Amino acid sequence: MDNDSLRRGKPTCHIKYDEATALLTGDALQTLAFDLLSRPTTLPATRQLQMLATLAQATGSLGMAGGQAIDLAHVGKNMQQAELEHMHSLKTGALIRAAVALGALACPNLDSTALQHLDHYAQKLGLAFQVMDDVLDYEADTATLGKTAGKDAHNNKPNFVALMGAEEARHYAEQLIAEAIAQLAPFGNSAQPLRQLAEFVTARKH
Amino acid sequence: MDNDSLRRGKPTCHIKYDEATALLTGDALQTLAFDLLSRPTTLPATRQLQMLATLAQATGSLGMAGGQAIDLAHVGKNMQQAELEHMHSLKTGALIRAAVALGALACPNLDSTALQHLDHYAQKLGLAFQVMDDVLDYEADTATLGKTAGKDAHNNKPNFVALMGAEEARHYAEQLIAEAIAQLAPFGNSAQPLRQLAEFVTARKH
Repeated sequence: MDNDSLRRGKPTCHIKYDEATALLTGDALQTLAFDLLSRPTTLPATRQLQMLATLAQATGSLGMAGGQAIDLAHVGKNMQQAELEHMHSLKTGALIRAAVALGALACPNLDSTALQHLDHYAQKLGLAFQVMDDVLDYEADTATLGKTAGKDAHNNKPNFVALMGAEEARHYAEQLIAEAIAQLAPFGNSAQPLRQLAEFVTARKH
Repeated sequence: MDNDSLRRGKPTCHIKYDEATALLTGDALQTLAFDLLSRPTTLPATRQLQMLATLAQATGSLGMAGGQAIDLAHVGKNMQQAELEHMHSLKTGALIRAAVALGALACPNLDSTALQHLDHYAQKLGLAFQVMDDVLDYEADTATLGKTAGKDAHNNKPNFVALMGAEEARHYAEQLIAEAIAQLAPFGNSAQPLRQLAEFVTARKH
């Protein structure tokens, strides 16, 4: 939808194939997620319904699709930090939260306090990811980034670098990651992969 | 995706708003269906999972999205009747079948023979709907149809009128509707709304 010709260093789907194929592939993959989650598992059926509801709410008008609509409506307009963070919490944050929640809900013996800690972790992680995305878009060259660099600034889209400068934005992302990792304290060593995932957000080059 | 500017006599979403809004609205509405089906009801959770799986499989790569891809791949190409019917069984038929199946699955005391009859009904109905769509596209003027008339022939798309002529196509649709209605015999008067729905397919002008 941003009409970028590259993702992860490869041609995007609508460039490699065509727009209709890209749209249908997106529709089919989105549906496949619900298909997979509705198949019989060893979990209670009520838990699977909870997982399906979590994913559906994260992707719809109050999640990803709604966030993307807000994003498109603000090209060339100013956004305060709170508005920008709200937009990102829907556009990419909701699906990152859902990914963490689905992993948690797949544990038969999950308690609600643990779920809450993991959700806070995911919220911080999601926002940090987006702040770093803006920093990388500003700093990196296209070859390293795997998508067209400087695209957000070029398209006059509200972003964290424009709002607070690149250095401050990177510092903000690092602070969010520290807060995310702090939420994992109750889980001890078992949460190590989630810590590494969080650290990767600020270490990544693309 | 057919880039038509009219549906049911009104401007299509991408004409009235813009392409991005139309895409996001489709994404959000598709997700809303899964959202609604995953909310707590008085049905057993396993039944709800069955409904979710039914919808997901009908809309994905082996259903609507796949059928639409086959359709787009055959613009300007010939299709035998069997291929054309297969394409429509995915593109529109799968979702019509799912709609009937979901209604049936919402009955707490449904037996599998009844479900099978209703599924056969839906298959015949879905195909008849598409055959009549081609007949109406050929016969009607734009004002009556509520979408641009003659569009399929104009776009050189395989269709039932091109394959068998308008009169024979209408006759085929009527025969399919009779077969659909025959499947409702075991249900007596309680299936009257489904009979009326079937009759509407061949009676409709748009």
